[in-house]
Amino acid sequence: MSGPAGPRLDDVFAHVDANRASFVERLAGWVRVPSVSATGQGMPEAAGHARDLVAAAGLEATVAETAGWPLVLGHRPGPPGSPTVLIYGHYDVQPPDPLDAWTSPPFEPEVRDGRLYGRGGADNKGQHLAQLLAIESLLATRGELPCTVKVLLDGEEEIGSPHLAGFARRERERLAADLVVWSDGPVDPAGGWRLVFGVRGIASFELRARGANRSLHSGNWGGVVPNPLWTLVHLLATMRDRDGRITVEGFGDEVEPLGAAERAALELLPVDLEAVKADLGLEELDAPAGRGFAERLAAWPTLTINGLHGGYGGQGTQTVLPSEAVAKCDVRLVHAQRAADVYDKLEAHVRRHAPGVELVRQGSMEPSRTPMGSAFTAPIRAGMAAAQGADPLLVPVLGGSLPLHVFTGVLGLPTFGIPLGNPDQANHAPNENLDLERFHTGIRTAAAVLAHLGASKLPFMGPASSGTMAG
Amino acid sequence: MSGPAGPRLDDVFAHVDANRASFVERLAGWVRVPSVSATGQGMPEAAGHARDLVAAAGLEATVAETAGWPLVLGHRPGPPGSPTVLIYGHYDVQPPDPLDAWTSPPFEPEVRDGRLYGRGGADNKGQHLAQLLAIESLLATRGELPCTVKVLLDGEEEIGSPHLAGFARRERERLAADLVVWSDGPVDPAGGWRLVFGVRGIASFELRARGANRSLHSGNWGGVVPNPLWTLVHLLATMRDRDGRITVEGFGDEVEPLGAAERAALELLPVDLEAVKADLGLEELDAPAGRGFAERLAAWPTLTINGLHGGYGGQGTQTVLPSEAVAKCDVRLVHAQRAADVYDKLEAHVRRHAPGVELVRQGSMEPSRTPMGSAFTAPIRAGMAAAQGADPLLVPVLGGSLPLHVFTGVLGLPTFGIPLGNPDQANHAPNENLDLERFHTGIRTAAAVLAHLGASKLPFMGPASSGTMAG
Repeated sequence: MSGPAGPRLDDVFAHVDANRASFVERLAGWVRVPSVSATGQGMPEAAGHARDLVAAAGLEATVAETAGWPLVLGHRPGPPGSPTVLIYGHYDVQPPDPLDAWTSPPFEPEVRDGRLYGRGGADNKGQHLAQLLAIESLLATRGELPCTVKVLLDGEEEIGSPHLAGFARRERERLAADLVVWSDGPVDPAGGWRLVFGVRGIASFELRARGANRSLHSGNWGGVVPNPLWTLVHLLATMRDRDGRITVEGFGDEVEPLGAAERAALELLPVDLEAVKADLGLEELDAPAGRGFAERLAAWPTLTINGLHGGYGGQGTQTVLPSEAVAKCDVRLVHAQRAADVYDKLEAHVRRHAPGVELVRQGSMEPSRTPMGSAFTAPIRAGMAAAQGADPLLVPVLGGSLPLHVFTGVLGLPTFGIPLGNPDQANHAPNENLDLERFHTGIRTAAAVLAHLGASKLPFMGPASSGTMAG
Repeated sequence: MSGPAGPRLDDVFAHVDANRASFVERLAGWVRVPSVSATGQGMPEAAGHARDLVAAAGLEATVAETAGWPLVLGHRPGPPGSPTVLIYGHYDVQPPDPLDAWTSPPFEPEVRDGRLYGRGGADNKGQHLAQLLAIESLLATRGELPCTVKVLLDGEEEIGSPHLAGFARRERERLAADLVVWSDGPVDPAGGWRLVFGVRGIASFELRARGANRSLHSGNWGGVVPNPLWTLVHLLATMRDRDGRITVEGFGDEVEPLGAAERAALELLPVDLEAVKADLGLEELDAPAGRGFAERLAAWPTLTINGLHGGYGGQGTQTVLPSEAVAKCDVRLVHAQRAADVYDKLEAHVRRHAPGVELVRQGSMEPSRTPMGSAFTAPIRAGMAAAQGADPLLVPVLGGSLPLHVFTGVLGLPTFGIPLGNPDQANHAPNENLDLERFHTGIRTAAAVLAHLGASKLPFMGPASSGTMAG
């Protein structure tokens, strides 16, 4: 925690408050630029717009080409001896379909009841823009930043960031920093702000089973010709038990249990199981009662069947014995599992239990964990508390996946997540929206976090942090 | 077997041979009349056409209304003291979709390479027409029939014959007979003619599983919110093991094993497992090697998943936790299981293993078995041998299902099936076709079977058989 003598922030907060309306205008202008990485809609123009936003915040800005959609980089040195903060966000958005489910068009942002509706408003334009506007506000009031700031805006996050790790390996020098700060996703479901230290990884795959070379009559062939749906049912039943434990041989060998600090933090997370059940229309959850809920999402790998399809699916009956069936699955990985190793174990399991079934690897992200005891935790918490009026919840690991392993794994940097979206932000869905009160507090928070990091007397990486990112 | 002094048939066979071309014309005319019970296409006109065909064969013909599509009845008394044969067939056909997969339009029959192509040519118009043309040929050459003949043409066989059992219960007198002869489906895959004594039954059902009230993100909810696909996978895995044994409690209690005669007959059926595997593109079959194949289809109940659908099924990945999933299944029943009892056991099993899953009953037929030792077996075999030049294969039970329990169960009559379709008849599929050589031999066979039944000195039902079916 910062002591009573934390850095002065009233002038910066006053600037943010005074510019509230124009900052919302800036957000609306950014949401108005389509940037759908999956389809390419608007992407080149969006990269230019992102570069202009970074430049307008007062940073040296560059568009860096990759084999996919470009990255946008920013850099502004702070005082000598200050730490270097790398801000990570993404300017691409999810496809807006189905269009007719939107109350206002996805790329024509509209403010209703204190929220801005539009694709990308919450995921992730409003969140990295809040950080850029914090930088702009710090510069407007102080003329300089409290620490060195670098910005990295991904153009392919929504399609799995396929070129991010390669870029980081090639450009270690340009990305050299002491820590990474990112804002993505929602605050706690109960409304409290969160500081996030890690994410689960993911390994997606398809299981393809085949039977005869054509669909057959179940009366003439059922019981003598292999049924690919039965094959998948029996195979899947060997992969995960009814209690959710993954039963693939050797699957959990690399899992490193949570530490005492992580377990203690999970205990403090508010979980209202009755409210969750009421919201989802469920009488029972799969998790054990009470605290197991948060622990399960943070510390356990999971195997989800995302889809399973084969045979007749229309009205009434059809006495068919299908010829093929496909299951789509994802495994959520926890520290220190590695996707390639997990895929190998899954493949060995499938070969042993259903040798005719094909496993197709479909993309993965490694898990990422930053120790909660990092030296940067205290100033970041203090900054959040200064802007938000309360200490944040500490989340050791989020259930979902982000490409943070690029930073913790490839670059060796601790990462700190400060999600500012409202819990009902409708990410990836129609009517995505951002609560503008949270956007406003998010700008204050980002400024306060940079101020507290700058004021902290922490080890920093030294001369390399003053190198330029341009080039 | 008939002795060397079987009834004279050369004059009847000569008549059939002489009229070969005009009989094919008659078949083409019948196929040209659409009669799709599922959609209603052409049904009222088809019932009238069927009545005219029965009358043209020399029988008193009636259309009998039901709560669904009408039945068509025929009757002509034979000599006093002769048995009464009830011929069962159906004039409705499967929907012809997909239309663009037909080489010639489904209701514009065309003869190519000795086969007539058109919907219903094999299933079932060509098969019951062969029997009607046999009656016509017997009358043309003899002036009278060798036994009393009744005809019952179903208009709802392709939709499960929902009104047939009720009609039989109400009209026992009109349907009074000594035995039932039916022709449907194909000869043995290897080409041999078959005499069929029974069929498996069927009970179709849907399993509906529900999770949350909406699809969720697998990272945020996987492992804590129930996944309806996992629910179905684990439920189904408790219902049938990898070897095909149904593991629903009490499921096999009512199964009566095949008798010695049935087992001996199964041993004689030709099964070329290598040819089956090559045709279906399979390296392995589910059945144990050798004779187990035929036995499995005749004597074992089976549980087939006809379709299973839930969650994402498109290209690539979607990290979704689905909210609902549905499995469509059919159970094939064997003697002396009853569908209602099997449904009860399935429901009890589902309640025990997955209480949230809903089981929806979707229609059933009881199994049917006629003892191979029936007194009518010998004259029918002899008639078939006289027309076909070889003793038929004896099939105790077919794998598929037909509403024969109406006769064996409701009316207490033995049933005898003489399928005359070619093995590649494409029933229920585009380019359905009937080999005209088999059609021709089928007419000769039907005539010879009636002649041999008339010549046999067997117990018959007496005065009731002379009652009229009209009214």
